[in-house]
Amino acid sequence: MNSVGIVAEYNPFHNGHDFQFQSAKKLALSDVAIAVMSGNFLQRGEPALVNKWSRTKMALQAGVDIVIELPYAYAVQNAEIFAYGAVLLLDAIGCRDICFGSESGNIDQFYETVRFINHHKDEYDYYIRKFIKQGISYPSALSAAFQELKPQGNIVDLTKPNNILGFHYMSAGEKINSRISFHTVKRRNAEHHDESLSGASITSATSIRKSIHFHSELKEIREYVPKGTYDELLNYHTTFGQFHSWEDYWSFLQYKILSMTKEELEEIYDVSEGLENRLIKASRTANSFEEFMKSVKTKRYTWTRLQRTCIHILTNTKKQTIHSLNKDPQYIRLLGMNEHGREYLRKIKKELQVPLISKVSSFQNDMLLLDLKASNVYALALPEPERSTLLKHEFAQPPILYEEEF
Amino acid sequence: MNSVGIVAEYNPFHNGHDFQFQSAKKLALSDVAIAVMSGNFLQRGEPALVNKWSRTKMALQAGVDIVIELPYAYAVQNAEIFAYGAVLLLDAIGCRDICFGSESGNIDQFYETVRFINHHKDEYDYYIRKFIKQGISYPSALSAAFQELKPQGNIVDLTKPNNILGFHYMSAGEKINSRISFHTVKRRNAEHHDESLSGASITSATSIRKSIHFHSELKEIREYVPKGTYDELLNYHTTFGQFHSWEDYWSFLQYKILSMTKEELEEIYDVSEGLENRLIKASRTANSFEEFMKSVKTKRYTWTRLQRTCIHILTNTKKQTIHSLNKDPQYIRLLGMNEHGREYLRKIKKELQVPLISKVSSFQNDMLLLDLKASNVYALALPEPERSTLLKHEFAQPPILYEEEF
Repeated sequence: MNSVGIVAEYNPFHNGHDFQFQSAKKLALSDVAIAVMSGNFLQRGEPALVNKWSRTKMALQAGVDIVIELPYAYAVQNAEIFAYGAVLLLDAIGCRDICFGSESGNIDQFYETVRFINHHKDEYDYYIRKFIKQGISYPSALSAAFQELKPQGNIVDLTKPNNILGFHYMSAGEKINSRISFHTVKRRNAEHHDESLSGASITSATSIRKSIHFHSELKEIREYVPKGTYDELLNYHTTFGQFHSWEDYWSFLQYKILSMTKEELEEIYDVSEGLENRLIKASRTANSFEEFMKSVKTKRYTWTRLQRTCIHILTNTKKQTIHSLNKDPQYIRLLGMNEHGREYLRKIKKELQVPLISKVSSFQNDMLLLDLKASNVYALALPEPERSTLLKHEFAQPPILYEEEF
Repeated sequence: MNSVGIVAEYNPFHNGHDFQFQSAKKLALSDVAIAVMSGNFLQRGEPALVNKWSRTKMALQAGVDIVIELPYAYAVQNAEIFAYGAVLLLDAIGCRDICFGSESGNIDQFYETVRFINHHKDEYDYYIRKFIKQGISYPSALSAAFQELKPQGNIVDLTKPNNILGFHYMSAGEKINSRISFHTVKRRNAEHHDESLSGASITSATSIRKSIHFHSELKEIREYVPKGTYDELLNYHTTFGQFHSWEDYWSFLQYKILSMTKEELEEIYDVSEGLENRLIKASRTANSFEEFMKSVKTKRYTWTRLQRTCIHILTNTKKQTIHSLNKDPQYIRLLGMNEHGREYLRKIKKELQVPLISKVSSFQNDMLLLDLKASNVYALALPEPERSTLLKHEFAQPPILYEEEF
């Protein structure tokens, strides 16, 4: 059995994701698709629309064979760390192929770009530092530094978000010297950041979320998601009474900032020099998360970087905690699988270098503690009794075993 | 001008308080009554029904001449520290007399009891330690230790809550060797902990609060409070939409505990050995503050002690912060005064050993920072836009100058 790895957030799982993992299996000649998926908080610094169990179910229903969790310590991070954690976990669970969606769709471009940057490493790093000092954001600095190298030939366009992620997956593979082969699928139809629903049956997760949040009408998204996703979203809304968005956490964030001293705020991961004063000031006057973000935003930080910082404040994640973690994953947390995935796991289990965790209560690890804390905080957006139900989930829920006849 | 000091919480100001400060002025032959009053969180570990500005107004309307704030670092503490801070502040603002309500009503009994305990200090301390080791609460240990000394003669009954407070006021006076004379007024009619409204026009603050919380009918309390209190309560409810109770802060407390590690919780003031595990466990399952408290409660801690611990968690008040504070007050924060009080302050201002603060923004002090943080947290119980209004109060509100013709 060969497995192909996919890095995902499935927020929510839609037809484009379906197309991607089916293509991945074909491209990599694999019969098992494994998704490493962000937990309840995402790379863009946002709470997921629905919790990780629900999103796992969506993926399994569509045919993904195994879903494992990308720990909080990698998931709520910039593209480089996000990609590093994801690739290491897929490597650890035995994937020899990884496939990602990109605007480029041409894997040779990626290989050439990685080689090109490795070749100009010192120069590249010099420019990055130079541009950051000038007060622009990290992603802009990366892009500007890359331009300074005057790349020529079959080079990928590193101003596109999915190309950037793909580049980081491949750099991570290079870094750990893995035997992983990379593949890419050209993203269909919609750009990642498209904001309105297009006519086709594939559209971006962003536009699906906008539809759900602003129109709160699930019907509108029906043609863009598999039936499993649609039913699961309906079911979640019925069970918990709502989907999750940043505004549901705003009063906790505000409370948290207002109950901290400047010095305590500086201890939080990603709160960099000077930001603590802006955060404290804005928290005293803002009426909503949106308003808060707008008054904190500067040219130096991207919106998503600031959102991630807010998630770290919300989850009380400290610099010291992140820095004291082992950089490489010490466990693989299994969220769900189908029968086929179970068979794969049974076969490779003995070769695994890190433990495969099904029950969190039986395993102690600092990185895992962050995931548990994040799940606790995630649950608090809901009123009682839904809050208690969701709080119990994290400990009570075994990995989902999906059987086709469901 | 002579001033008499009163220690108060005025939660809310009622006819019994009116009787007390009028009697105090007579007993002490004073023409100025000064109340040192807890801020937004109280000695029993509860949020005040209405904020400190509103409670200051009630007292001024009834004729109290000056209201100053008992800082959080003294107010949310056991009787001994509470009394110590209050007496030191009244001493600092020039009071030569202090008058308190008690079940005893006989000041000689208090003087004799303080002398008796001073005489048996070592033995008393030995028994306190012994009883605490046996796992009973601090107040019970004090009372049991006192019984072991086999007190005889004209001794005050130290099982009564107001007698205990009175005893601590006088012990504090003794400790700082002040020239303060103490007086006591027998509490009228209602015991401090009475739970239903009695027929008379004086009843306890506790029963008034119960009436307000459970029946949410202000009419019921009309005969037990001055008109000023009644109007102010109505006004507060109209402006902010609600009164404050612990349940309004429950979700913040739950969030706070669930986002902390065991080690971080141990850093909080008053979280003593072993309590952190009970707190974390209870926070995962409780549906309300009441439920939470019931599952945390043990024989070792009184209900009020546990409530204070919860306030410290809520306000993120750490052991290290409290221990690093100067033990004696470094400022007097003025909340309000009438013309008569203003005249008094003008006269004694030059003799004050610590600064009298009218505007918090112009004064930096670690103890004051705790008060500001507590006020921030207190405001968060309200929905927007009331929350923002209350958040601005603390910085925008100058001391209230009450003029009779209001």
